[in-house]
Amino acid sequence: MLDLIIIGGGPAGITAGIYAARKKINTLLITKDFIGQTGRAFFIENYPGFERISGLELIEKFKKHLKKFEIEIKEVGVKKIRKVENKFIVQTEKRKNFISKAVILASGRDPRPLEVSGEKELIGRGISYCPTCDLPFFKNKEIAVIGAGNAGFNAAIEAVRYGNKVYILEFSSKVIADEITQERAKKTGKIKVILNAEVKKILGEKEVRGLIYQDRISKKEKTLNVQGIFIMIGEIPATDYIKGLVDFNEKDEIIVDPKNLQTKTKGLFACGDVNNVLCGQIVIAAGSGAKAALSAYEYLQKF
Amino acid sequence: MLDLIIIGGGPAGITAGIYAARKKINTLLITKDFIGQTGRAFFIENYPGFERISGLELIEKFKKHLKKFEIEIKEVGVKKIRKVENKFIVQTEKRKNFISKAVILASGRDPRPLEVSGEKELIGRGISYCPTCDLPFFKNKEIAVIGAGNAGFNAAIEAVRYGNKVYILEFSSKVIADEITQERAKKTGKIKVILNAEVKKILGEKEVRGLIYQDRISKKEKTLNVQGIFIMIGEIPATDYIKGLVDFNEKDEIIVDPKNLQTKTKGLFACGDVNNVLCGQIVIAAGSGAKAALSAYEYLQKF
Repeated sequence: MLDLIIIGGGPAGITAGIYAARKKINTLLITKDFIGQTGRAFFIENYPGFERISGLELIEKFKKHLKKFEIEIKEVGVKKIRKVENKFIVQTEKRKNFISKAVILASGRDPRPLEVSGEKELIGRGISYCPTCDLPFFKNKEIAVIGAGNAGFNAAIEAVRYGNKVYILEFSSKVIADEITQERAKKTGKIKVILNAEVKKILGEKEVRGLIYQDRISKKEKTLNVQGIFIMIGEIPATDYIKGLVDFNEKDEIIVDPKNLQTKTKGLFACGDVNNVLCGQIVIAAGSGAKAALSAYEYLQKF
Repeated sequence: MLDLIIIGGGPAGITAGIYAARKKINTLLITKDFIGQTGRAFFIENYPGFERISGLELIEKFKKHLKKFEIEIKEVGVKKIRKVENKFIVQTEKRKNFISKAVILASGRDPRPLEVSGEKELIGRGISYCPTCDLPFFKNKEIAVIGAGNAGFNAAIEAVRYGNKVYILEFSSKVIADEITQERAKKTGKIKVILNAEVKKILGEKEVRGLIYQDRISKKEKTLNVQGIFIMIGEIPATDYIKGLVDFNEKDEIIVDPKNLQTKTKGLFACGDVNNVLCGQIVIAAGSGAKAALSAYEYLQKF
């Protein structure tokens, strides 16, 4: 039997792994891959110590760092976790079971895709799901933000500060963002909101050149010549495998005690973007991974 | 008037600075220096991305990263902070005032003194709280390290490289250092760990000649003839300048809401080792610096 299983190979999971290995906790890290949200980022300029590094390069450095220590790693998806008495049974997609005393969930989240033509191909080349990470690369351009929620509006407001002209495209017939946020957007004078807009296609080959949307009332197709598209239609915490053992908030985030990152189940911790603590940033996720490992260590001492 | 003042130049303050600057917040960072706890560390192996780096090198990288952005920096101590209406007035030790809408406290911790006879008098004459800074002055001597945590063990391991014979004295009945660090110490064959040891007195007039400790089990007093003493028993939050605006817990840590790191005063945030959230780790401090900056950004939007 293992002491600890960590699920996830992003900054949270890897940092948890580094800390667990240094504490000589008998640990298995399971992840479907080592790409995740970090790997998808074009460039990262806000992880302290690296002034500018690609997401893939950074995650590669993290992975190499982890592998310096004694820790078992399996690259496979997780299908289900159960708790039987005081032990966790983690079943992988290859139907293999692993048993441990504690588990750290660090499976992150996936941005909700638009699922239109051109989207996948142009990720990192004009399409982004993370304005905090990527807006500095779009100065003085025309930008489309897809989604009129708070995240979309905040992205648009922020984009204006970088000298951009901004469109917000919203599928439904009304804006979802808070009034206060809408007012703030209005004040900039540089954000145009287009309602009833269904994005049909993203244009460009090597980089984004524009998009085509259909006006859902008039049924007419229109083109916007934008160089950047931020898709802000929500994210999906990667938690299908863990229903039952944890509580979720209204955003499907796992509820944890923010002090030690324990879920409602003893010995089960959640860190990084999978939980309900403000995150969405590599260094915050990494920090919470360290915290989860130290909390798990405490827990194991009393097991 | 500034939007934000950050106090502290360690991983928390620097990361807060990076995030604030990237959010285009008009920010001043004030720090007495860029050394702090990180600078005092010999080598760091658990900040993800750097497999092994000296504390001074890492903090130098952080500082260089920060300076890439537009942010004002002043190297001076802070004497006092007051809040007048909804603004903060930060007074430096040079009696200059700076005014801002929000403040992030990231002043970290100072080494905790033993508080025994002879200690104060012999600082810099055989007594040190910073082995990184001072070990080169103690070649081929007998050394006592007080405290059996990671910092103490790392000091002891490093001391052996300077040809020293080393004792580690620990007040409690067990070692707190990581298992991996304990093993490394054992391998040197030159480090003797003494548990249940309460240091009673430091001997010497012009320089350290030894120390007296009591075995807490046998109650017998013993003398060690050492020429160097490194006191590594933890750290105290550096918060003298902030009494009144925040509440403290029993460890003198600033109490914050762990979700957004705000203190009891609106617009006043605390991150890193100065607050009451489990920390003591560079990556956790850096993560909390990012979180504090993002919380301050939210606050400033509604100011």
